[in-house]
Amino acid sequence: MGEQQLDQVASDELVSVPVREFRRLLDAGLPARATAEAFAALARINVLYMIARAWSGHIGTSFSSLEIMSWLFLNELRDLAKGPGACDIFFSSKGHDAPALYAVLAGLGLLPEEKLDNLRRLHGLPGHPHVETPYIQANTGSLGMGISKAKGMALANRLAGRPRRIFVLTGDGELQEGQFWESLASAARAGLGEIVAIVDHNKVQSDTWVAEVGDLGDLESKLRAFGWHAARCDGHDVGALERAFRSFDGMPDRPKALVADTVKGKGVSFMEAPALKPGELYAYHSGAPTEDEYARASAELLARAARLVADAGLGALATTTGRRPERREPRVSDNLIAAYRDALVAQGGRRPDLAVLDADLVKDCGLVPFAAAYPDRFIECGIAEQDMVSTACGMARRGVLPVVHSFACFLSARPNEQIYNQCSEASKVIYVGSLAGLLPGGPGHSHQSVRDIAALASIPRLLMAEPSVEAEVHALFEYLVHVADESAYLRLVSVKWPVPFTYPAGQRVAPGTGWVVRDGQDVVVFGYGPWMLSNAWHAAEEIERTTGLRVRLINVPWLNRIDAGWLREAIGGTRVVVTLDNHYVRGGQGEMIAAAIAGLGLDPAVVVTMLGVTELPECGTNDEVLAHHGLDTASLVRRIRAAAGRRMQLA
Amino acid sequence: MGEQQLDQVASDELVSVPVREFRRLLDAGLPARATAEAFAALARINVLYMIARAWSGHIGTSFSSLEIMSWLFLNELRDLAKGPGACDIFFSSKGHDAPALYAVLAGLGLLPEEKLDNLRRLHGLPGHPHVETPYIQANTGSLGMGISKAKGMALANRLAGRPRRIFVLTGDGELQEGQFWESLASAARAGLGEIVAIVDHNKVQSDTWVAEVGDLGDLESKLRAFGWHAARCDGHDVGALERAFRSFDGMPDRPKALVADTVKGKGVSFMEAPALKPGELYAYHSGAPTEDEYARASAELLARAARLVADAGLGALATTTGRRPERREPRVSDNLIAAYRDALVAQGGRRPDLAVLDADLVKDCGLVPFAAAYPDRFIECGIAEQDMVSTACGMARRGVLPVVHSFACFLSARPNEQIYNQCSEASKVIYVGSLAGLLPGGPGHSHQSVRDIAALASIPRLLMAEPSVEAEVHALFEYLVHVADESAYLRLVSVKWPVPFTYPAGQRVAPGTGWVVRDGQDVVVFGYGPWMLSNAWHAAEEIERTTGLRVRLINVPWLNRIDAGWLREAIGGTRVVVTLDNHYVRGGQGEMIAAAIAGLGLDPAVVVTMLGVTELPECGTNDEVLAHHGLDTASLVRRIRAAAGRRMQLA
Repeated sequence: MGEQQLDQVASDELVSVPVREFRRLLDAGLPARATAEAFAALARINVLYMIARAWSGHIGTSFSSLEIMSWLFLNELRDLAKGPGACDIFFSSKGHDAPALYAVLAGLGLLPEEKLDNLRRLHGLPGHPHVETPYIQANTGSLGMGISKAKGMALANRLAGRPRRIFVLTGDGELQEGQFWESLASAARAGLGEIVAIVDHNKVQSDTWVAEVGDLGDLESKLRAFGWHAARCDGHDVGALERAFRSFDGMPDRPKALVADTVKGKGVSFMEAPALKPGELYAYHSGAPTEDEYARASAELLARAARLVADAGLGALATTTGRRPERREPRVSDNLIAAYRDALVAQGGRRPDLAVLDADLVKDCGLVPFAAAYPDRFIECGIAEQDMVSTACGMARRGVLPVVHSFACFLSARPNEQIYNQCSEASKVIYVGSLAGLLPGGPGHSHQSVRDIAALASIPRLLMAEPSVEAEVHALFEYLVHVADESAYLRLVSVKWPVPFTYPAGQRVAPGTGWVVRDGQDVVVFGYGPWMLSNAWHAAEEIERTTGLRVRLINVPWLNRIDAGWLREAIGGTRVVVTLDNHYVRGGQGEMIAAAIAGLGLDPAVVVTMLGVTELPECGTNDEVLAHHGLDTASLVRRIRAAAGRRMQLA
Repeated sequence: MGEQQLDQVASDELVSVPVREFRRLLDAGLPARATAEAFAALARINVLYMIARAWSGHIGTSFSSLEIMSWLFLNELRDLAKGPGACDIFFSSKGHDAPALYAVLAGLGLLPEEKLDNLRRLHGLPGHPHVETPYIQANTGSLGMGISKAKGMALANRLAGRPRRIFVLTGDGELQEGQFWESLASAARAGLGEIVAIVDHNKVQSDTWVAEVGDLGDLESKLRAFGWHAARCDGHDVGALERAFRSFDGMPDRPKALVADTVKGKGVSFMEAPALKPGELYAYHSGAPTEDEYARASAELLARAARLVADAGLGALATTTGRRPERREPRVSDNLIAAYRDALVAQGGRRPDLAVLDADLVKDCGLVPFAAAYPDRFIECGIAEQDMVSTACGMARRGVLPVVHSFACFLSARPNEQIYNQCSEASKVIYVGSLAGLLPGGPGHSHQSVRDIAALASIPRLLMAEPSVEAEVHALFEYLVHVADESAYLRLVSVKWPVPFTYPAGQRVAPGTGWVVRDGQDVVVFGYGPWMLSNAWHAAEEIERTTGLRVRLINVPWLNRIDAGWLREAIGGTRVVVTLDNHYVRGGQGEMIAAAIAGLGLDPAVVVTMLGVTELPECGTNDEVLAHHGLDTASLVRRIRAAAGRRMQLA
């Protein structure tokens, strides 16, 4: 039985440049600059191809970095042929420019060409860099760690007596992260001249201009104040890049930073950031182009590449054409982010003391309408989660109710201690972590938030809740804003999902209790969130149809509280319990429920089986990821049946 | 039955200045500078008194900040009489200078005088600031959050239309924290001129000179590069302080920073940092003076204060003399930090690829001998935990085995995402978190690490272990270094403890399994760590003597793994299980064990009772804190008996 009903969106043709064309360029004996310029132009076509094919990815930042990466790989990085463990090192700290890096690596023959067809697919090329991919030197995706990692590599290389140059590409919005500044001074002090940082200064972070979010000021002066040598050039001019790197050659004992002025979306007229109208948000940070956008962008990129190749005397550019895979889009879905967006605006109207803080994810977190309606109470903190949380902490001490936003993966971890500190003051802040859980599977494990419950659950005076349907978003947020006398973490799944059940009319919101999604007397399944409960619902239907076993499915929207009395009643006479976690099993809701059941001492014994994530999340399509982790409907049918069979064996 | 055997150390007399003497000074109508200078001199006597009486506290940083605090409270902070919610705001971001703040507040009558007798006592004055204390505006103790909090307070004040000046005192070592730099730019951008930051630039962090750990460079230039107005003056010269603050008055729209040059330990000749010999570590960052040190320091402080009071025409200074409480010191104790110190040096000799990273806690983490023996493999990262972990991450990718140190409270939380990122690369790093758990109770909840297990336990490829006796430190560290093929977190209790059991000879180290500390058939108690198991051992003895109930006590040194087969055998036929956590119950080891028991489906049912910390840790002496949280021997007797009784009621 299918778990989603899908629309079929018209497909299209996609154009890529085969590796043999890169090879032809590289073997032509052209001057270094002409080669690098044309190489970048070819790679740009393949970046667009990969992202269009995957229906997701980061175009703008990939395009801004391509001349830099091309120049580095063609001219600066030594001994690439010796393999990733023995050559000079390059990695991108911002990480979401992975498609550019993949295109460059494939063009050089360092990555199998066919991999480019599998961006964001299971066992393909992850949405953010992962060291399992050849020549990927570091896992990135969460920002600000690059210089620190480069320092570690340099220190290890020195200990082993095998010095190697290390090039780290950073974003510019990324420099709002405190870790970047934390990492600078000791590199200068230790004289780590083998480290070269390049700032891809494309001026735009996720949603809008860096200067509007958290202006970098005089970046070169700041870098120099921290002991680094700093230079600046046009990051799309390979000649300027060459001059900058040559100017570094005479400074072996000082870490160096190159501020490379670039254009986000470079190469496609309507994707370039300077085309933004005043007040408009940038549209090509993440996500795939539409069919029309792809056609227009591709035409621009192909024209330029063909001209560069022809000008170099290499004749016509050969390309490969393939079909774009169909986009799988749910037809009728619950959209929790949209529901939250509306709930937030509504509460903003009722509570003049409510202020919203964001860390550069105003679109993804559903904050645009609030920011427009209440600009005085909207604070854009930039990519600075620790600062954001402690700012909220200060506001809460002075009578404001701050509602703090980021992706769950970042919000639970980066300011982890700051959240504990805030709760220790017994003030009230509401944290809202979106993009929670295993899905979407495309961005990769840095963004798949499956340990946020564990990371925060033990904090006293922090109530954690997760809605499963749109109506529950409103109900829970209403409770957290108006009734709860403590801080809260609202965990939101961002993928839209077709949910086959509805929120019960008149449902009372009471921490530690849940509600029956589907009734049955043989097995009790506890879970939470839209896709997990939906998959379990379909699994329960399938199990009952094929075996007669009746599964009771219960939604427990509370992640770190369980009411023992309610739990006893919810289990009743059933002696098989399964818990489902859109999270690691260790530290998830299921472990809390299982432990509470052990505390009840029910006789005869209840057998609890805990299902959830047990290893690092795989990157892939949602279907691929769910199947891999055994959490799709078919796997749940099998696993719930096995749990029931286990009880029979024990009995 | 007593839980510790104690030596009695000779007591001594302690001298304090009564509040009426402060009042006499304040009422004398002296010039502002003379008043502030004498006020600070009197407060310094009381700081020494408080710390000597508590047998713990931070002298050096309290002394360096006293002229600054005195001047601010006497001359800059307006409307103090209106109460802490309506006056200008002062708080210390470094926080460990709390004794200085308490002395100033008490001198002004803003804090009950008798509170000074109860530093670091239950319901007294916490070791680090807590908002439950009058006029304490923010919880601090973990570093780097101050400017962020001040921004939040300023923004909230503006929203409410009640502007107030906000003074934040920071350390200088504290400026190594990334959050400080993360917080600066937006304050300048928003024009938060009501914020004044004062850097208590005493040049010494926990162990040694800031310049040797992570030089601040040209601090004023850095601050200006981030958009702040910066000035500098002698932080012990109240006249210079006055001139600096007056120079700020004409800049209402810019945040201002004053770099105040101070002397750590100011006022006592042998405690002043410049008295340090080359290579020597600073001895007065934390901890209490000996009787002899107290006598000499007190004499110096009293002489100067008496002179200032006499010079002001106020005659003789009246003081109060009391007895110093006896120091309670265990006679024969296990010292896990000392064992770890030796184990680390030993492994350093065997493994030339092993490198040690530290975050400014070289003494407390037991790293001095390793740093001396292997200076090339010792990296002092300063107060920069995120940078430290990502540096280790880079090293591990290049063949080094990094062993990373800090206090458990900081190591588990501040670089929480960086640890996950490192483990996602499937490299190997060993993290060692000391000062773990509820004790010592003196520093307060910012340092009482009782949620580090939960914060890290769900990370894949991170094995968490905690030894209970010295021999187990060696055995576990040996296993983590040589056998484990994944990263690890070694959790170390720092308080010395007299342990009434020994490590079994020939014990096999196997993750997820434990060993029997004391045998018995009626109740099984699982726990870990020195004081928790010792208290449980004494409780078991008491229970058997008084009731005949035989308690089996089992040490499970693994915090996030449990072997189901071993667990089934360990429980055997017993149907009452109690788990003990030196950690919050939610997310602790006990919850994992209880959930695993629920998975076993044992019939008749086992009843599990989980004991541990359930609320924010209280500050106090170790005995006070254990009794308050119900984890001393007497409480465990009661609670284990109640758990056994519960099973009988259910049966």
